[in-house]
Amino acid sequence: MPAVNEELLDRYAELIVGFGANVQPDQVVAVEAAPEAAPLVHRIVRSAYERGARYVDVAYFDPQVKRIRIETAAHDSLSWVPPWLGRRLLDLGELDAARIVLTPLIPPGLLAGTDPARAGRDRLPGLPESLQVIEERSVAWTISPFPTEPWARAVFPDLDPAAALEALWRDVEHVCRLDEPDPIEAWQQRIGEIWRAASRLDELDLDAVRFLGPGTDLTVGLLPSSRFAKEGGRTTTRTGIQHVPNLPTEELFTTPDPERTEGVVAATKPLDVGGSLLTGLRIRFEGGRAVEIEADTNAESLRERCATDEGAARLGEVALVDGDSRIGRLGRTFFNTLLDENSASHLALGDAYSHPIADPADLPRINESKVHVDFMIGSDAVTVSGVTRGGDEIPLLAGGAWWI
Amino acid sequence: MPAVNEELLDRYAELIVGFGANVQPDQVVAVEAAPEAAPLVHRIVRSAYERGARYVDVAYFDPQVKRIRIETAAHDSLSWVPPWLGRRLLDLGELDAARIVLTPLIPPGLLAGTDPARAGRDRLPGLPESLQVIEERSVAWTISPFPTEPWARAVFPDLDPAAALEALWRDVEHVCRLDEPDPIEAWQQRIGEIWRAASRLDELDLDAVRFLGPGTDLTVGLLPSSRFAKEGGRTTTRTGIQHVPNLPTEELFTTPDPERTEGVVAATKPLDVGGSLLTGLRIRFEGGRAVEIEADTNAESLRERCATDEGAARLGEVALVDGDSRIGRLGRTFFNTLLDENSASHLALGDAYSHPIADPADLPRINESKVHVDFMIGSDAVTVSGVTRGGDEIPLLAGGAWWI
Repeated sequence: MPAVNEELLDRYAELIVGFGANVQPDQVVAVEAAPEAAPLVHRIVRSAYERGARYVDVAYFDPQVKRIRIETAAHDSLSWVPPWLGRRLLDLGELDAARIVLTPLIPPGLLAGTDPARAGRDRLPGLPESLQVIEERSVAWTISPFPTEPWARAVFPDLDPAAALEALWRDVEHVCRLDEPDPIEAWQQRIGEIWRAASRLDELDLDAVRFLGPGTDLTVGLLPSSRFAKEGGRTTTRTGIQHVPNLPTEELFTTPDPERTEGVVAATKPLDVGGSLLTGLRIRFEGGRAVEIEADTNAESLRERCATDEGAARLGEVALVDGDSRIGRLGRTFFNTLLDENSASHLALGDAYSHPIADPADLPRINESKVHVDFMIGSDAVTVSGVTRGGDEIPLLAGGAWWI
Repeated sequence: MPAVNEELLDRYAELIVGFGANVQPDQVVAVEAAPEAAPLVHRIVRSAYERGARYVDVAYFDPQVKRIRIETAAHDSLSWVPPWLGRRLLDLGELDAARIVLTPLIPPGLLAGTDPARAGRDRLPGLPESLQVIEERSVAWTISPFPTEPWARAVFPDLDPAAALEALWRDVEHVCRLDEPDPIEAWQQRIGEIWRAASRLDELDLDAVRFLGPGTDLTVGLLPSSRFAKEGGRTTTRTGIQHVPNLPTEELFTTPDPERTEGVVAATKPLDVGGSLLTGLRIRFEGGRAVEIEADTNAESLRERCATDEGAARLGEVALVDGDSRIGRLGRTFFNTLLDENSASHLALGDAYSHPIADPADLPRINESKVHVDFMIGSDAVTVSGVTRGGDEIPLLAGGAWWI
């Protein structure tokens, strides 16, 4: 591993274990990663045990095994999921465990050349139980990037493999603020900024958010008690452990009204759905439902995903990202949801989080689904405005800057 | 991977999937392996799906994670096992699945320099549920070797790493009969020979087996219906699937009387107990119980293992291996139970199999334990004789040849 030195891996493991997951004495810790990530995984394991973890469970996900399944297995078997995988997540919840995921588990382009309809049936390593434990706030979870060779090739196709890996490590070092003298202090400061912007937004008591730009005129209705500031980068589990679900994190988000999204939206970045790359994605919404899904490539894999259940074609999340995002400033497409969703404003089809809802009376109205698929719709050319309950439109984000 | 070519890996995967596990249409298949074994794992996965497997679950076991735990975790936490690991095995049983294990998961010497008392508390990846599903004959299981670099270094310490790996692959190719024109045919023939020797042994209706050699004078009492031929290399699951638990397999074995082993025995090969290497092992038995365990190195790890429960210090298996064993003929110590136990006659402390018992009335008397530890006691210098119910002694194996 020439692109990363031991000292950087040590700093990264400390940030993930000590700040992202905030591992506690006697806590059980789960780690999920590609086999290539072993050098960072070993440091995460050591750091967790040094903090007194009771047990660290490492589950390596081998993307080649997924590809072989999609190429070879019987069509009807492709959606079968072994019961122990979901059981593990529910057990983690019962144990109030920590969970660390190193992304990507599925490198971009893994499934190139396979049948998207077959690929869409195998959702692993995604599991509905993962949304359930997030929803019940039992697990202190955090997701961080680990540069692998196939991922680096996708991001830097013009560089030779070693240079691509080196370049991706430099990006990850920068966006994770590992190049700061005190990364944890740097993150506390940035998370404070995000939280304050979210609080100003909540004071406006908006009825909807409108996105306007090339190929996009979309109004996303909010619920009466949708709030942006309740989840400001950090989250707290039911037992009171503060953790940071995404490292890096640059977004502020809330849960919309699943029945009041209207108009058209063009994705501003390619999107990876279970290993298939969608480019040029365009969606038309009517009454909250995605009624038309078109793309230049692989539209079928998202259509298949949206047919999972009733909620899969409705919105579960609306998120705003300002131009101070270190990821956005790089101007790169990472073909990776964690980084790309923190580079630009985005929406998610599928399951909604209940935490951003302030009034329990609104909870029965939030979207429910077995899936959750983020896609990016923000850029400097896309203006975001808020629609007040009186019908006024207030500019929120334009040219990457807050106007509130 | 210079030491092994693609064609050999393809042949090996076919032998393991098609003959060892004998994977059936719509069967669920579990694979457990070190991350280094990925090139063979990928071929096993493809071969299983080509035979119609419903799902192939690959669980990589990273030995470094185990070592870090033993070095770093709190002493009291070291015996904790997450519930989902055992649940997975019980689920495999309920599904009448196949299970393929590539050994070693723990390379020899992994835990060198760690505290044997701490190492003895962490039994993973061993799980008591594994014995349970073997006992209920629900899972079609098979174990085969995969040469890894740390293992090759231990077997060939005088070679450079690449040459050691190459030499170990040549040994594995030979002992797995992958150098035969038709490996499956070669195995059917050898398994037939083993079964016929076992049948002759059963005709003698022995009361005990006696081992006599340097440092060894041990009599192992049998139960009235202990049989050698009921498990002749192949086994059949409760749903009628024939499988080969060990590939390679060279032994014939039965379940002894746990209360009638008397005398002293010296191990003829070093023994790896959870990553700690025991050399010069000597055990004295009284009334079936191991009452003294001495060794030149790491005796403590076996003493700790034998303190697990009442049955852990009594015998659960007695096995005879003749001099035609390809493994035995190599004259190598592999520091690996699968290969070493098929090179020489051996005993196992701990849990017994019920299948070799012909009369259900004897079943309540067989040994029970959460552990099962094999150790080698055979060599050309050790003579094995049978003691009849009339008290006569009949030579069985001497100089590596059958005398019956």
